[in-house]
Amino acid sequence: MLTLEMIWDAQNALRGVAQRTPLEPAPRIGKNLYIKAENLQLTGAFKLRGAYNKIRCLSPEEAAKGVIACSAGNHAQGIALSAAKLGIRSIICMPAGAPISKVEATKGYGAEVVLVPGVYDDAAQEAARLAQEQGYTFAHPFNDPLVIAGQGSIGLEILEQLPQVDQVVVPIGGGGLISGIAFAIKSLKPSCRVIGVQAAAVASMYESWTAGELVTVKDSDTIADGIHVLTPGDLTFELCRQYVDEIVTVTEDEICAAILALMEGQKTVAEGAGATTVAACMFGKVDTAEKKTACVVSGGNVDVTTLSRVITKGLVKSGRLADISAKVADKPGSLLRLLQVVSETGANIVSISHDRDDEQADVDDCIVYLSLETRDITHVRQIKQALRSKGYSFVN
Amino acid sequence: MLTLEMIWDAQNALRGVAQRTPLEPAPRIGKNLYIKAENLQLTGAFKLRGAYNKIRCLSPEEAAKGVIACSAGNHAQGIALSAAKLGIRSIICMPAGAPISKVEATKGYGAEVVLVPGVYDDAAQEAARLAQEQGYTFAHPFNDPLVIAGQGSIGLEILEQLPQVDQVVVPIGGGGLISGIAFAIKSLKPSCRVIGVQAAAVASMYESWTAGELVTVKDSDTIADGIHVLTPGDLTFELCRQYVDEIVTVTEDEICAAILALMEGQKTVAEGAGATTVAACMFGKVDTAEKKTACVVSGGNVDVTTLSRVITKGLVKSGRLADISAKVADKPGSLLRLLQVVSETGANIVSISHDRDDEQADVDDCIVYLSLETRDITHVRQIKQALRSKGYSFVN
Repeated sequence: MLTLEMIWDAQNALRGVAQRTPLEPAPRIGKNLYIKAENLQLTGAFKLRGAYNKIRCLSPEEAAKGVIACSAGNHAQGIALSAAKLGIRSIICMPAGAPISKVEATKGYGAEVVLVPGVYDDAAQEAARLAQEQGYTFAHPFNDPLVIAGQGSIGLEILEQLPQVDQVVVPIGGGGLISGIAFAIKSLKPSCRVIGVQAAAVASMYESWTAGELVTVKDSDTIADGIHVLTPGDLTFELCRQYVDEIVTVTEDEICAAILALMEGQKTVAEGAGATTVAACMFGKVDTAEKKTACVVSGGNVDVTTLSRVITKGLVKSGRLADISAKVADKPGSLLRLLQVVSETGANIVSISHDRDDEQADVDDCIVYLSLETRDITHVRQIKQALRSKGYSFVN
Repeated sequence: MLTLEMIWDAQNALRGVAQRTPLEPAPRIGKNLYIKAENLQLTGAFKLRGAYNKIRCLSPEEAAKGVIACSAGNHAQGIALSAAKLGIRSIICMPAGAPISKVEATKGYGAEVVLVPGVYDDAAQEAARLAQEQGYTFAHPFNDPLVIAGQGSIGLEILEQLPQVDQVVVPIGGGGLISGIAFAIKSLKPSCRVIGVQAAAVASMYESWTAGELVTVKDSDTIADGIHVLTPGDLTFELCRQYVDEIVTVTEDEICAAILALMEGQKTVAEGAGATTVAACMFGKVDTAEKKTACVVSGGNVDVTTLSRVITKGLVKSGRLADISAKVADKPGSLLRLLQVVSETGANIVSISHDRDDEQADVDDCIVYLSLETRDITHVRQIKQALRSKGYSFVN
């Protein structure tokens, strides 16, 4: 079981191995808001802490045989780097379709990568089989007291960096990160609230917490792939029940807006999972009015090719980009008049297309698709209002 | 004229006003490479330093009237925040087409924004006119000893943060930043090299330096809008001639690749101008083999909507994304055979389109456009080789 001594021990062991990441104020995102920047951790995510703490505690016999894990993400890199630092062999099973960048990064940290045909579950089965067959130690990504103790070192750091902290907001996937942090915080400063955040699309800990028992949720896509876990751990579930004050959820659009806010306001790159905590504060899921709030930004390993889509979604969500499809009469001058109305509202046109053959258009209408740069949600409303008052209607 | 005392003075005055930005090692980008992160400066760029130092030195009469500047970028925000901190009125002239985000940000820091119909030059003329008419002090973005002294404080910080530094790499637009840094460095550690970097598209200081006299270059687009200056200052030109060891240029693709490397390797957001220094090191324009190198990343105010394009360009430049257009016979099974060859090379397909009516295709051919996720430049070459050996040809 978990003790505060285990977390102190982990913190000591991690000195010189993991970064003591900065806790920075983020005034452009929110008053009283601080970012615990685990996206600046080595390997780009907090996972290194738990992985290293697990592997350093292997017996000499276990260490001689090596460690195996199943992950195409941050856990893989955490295990790979930790094992390399300790001179221990590591094997990572990944589904064969894993992004090349993840495979290369994991190999780069010194692991042997086994690509397993099929999906994540197939890779997990193969890892279990190899562990049994070869005597490797299987390193669970979250449901392990040593892993949890490692992540708990973040809680100790937050209390050292901001002793006046009133609440700590932490992403939840399997629950390892928040279990460690909540245990540390509640042991040392019980008055400090600990709030968990999940992606609404895959809210397994939230559902389990509400039901009072372990629940497996349906699979669904989320930009927060780092916390894409369908069933929480039993150990982490119990720790959450005891030490976490509240769990909230955020939507995909909210996560995208938070990634964008971190890029623009803090000039920092967060992955979806990492940005959930900031999203929760930005969109009123967590009340930060009078409380010094530390948001754990758990990682920064977002696939850059997905960032483009995130940026667009984030701009729309924050009212800085508006896509409007308006019906106009198919007559000379119609488009000009529409653009005059738009121009008077002060919006910049990003792109425009004009389709006479659109199936949503009546015979003597055509559809104009406008992408507009706008100031905020209110501005978007004003533009639509101005268009409506001139007799334009909208299609989806 | 500029003196070391002026730079020390500026450094003192900036305490508690500007951030002392971190100088961080960037091992994933290059050995011996350090990033001086002025993108984390308040307002997102170094300009605050020079602007504040200029405005704090105004006489009481000048201060009472206010300060005016022409800029749609970092200078505007630097002036706005500095004036606000000193309780002085500031007016910023911008061309009417300036992005809404820049207008809002500048207003947000407390300036009055005057939108002037036309382009940058029109706004500059209007600023000069208003300065004359209303008695405002015109704040030049670079060709002013007090502005240069403010930027020089970065040189002092680098020497304090990394006394063993062998060379400092600095972006050049008008030359204010490098003039201040080079003066400080050469005054205190003459053995340390100072290297300037320009975008090849708008290399006015490079051309002037080579010609030995002030040169105005032709206008051209660059992603590095922060250093888009067609004629250097006479003062900054003289300082560069005296204190700068070398000036190099980087291409647009190289800048994009550097922005990407900073996002992936450092989890930090740099604007084009800021990333030029890292680009110079990544692409062999600056030799970092045996030299501790500090790259000044001058700002982080990149328009997020352009980041999408940057990401794509950066991935192509580093061989992680390859667009291939291949001719295939217009017969059943042709596409399948092509995909088999691609699959054997280990590349992932990002997108594919197949166009029988393409004008580059012969009557019985069609063109397949492939976007592939690849490992590196060598991998791209292998894929093309494999396709060629199976009889496929490419179109542009």
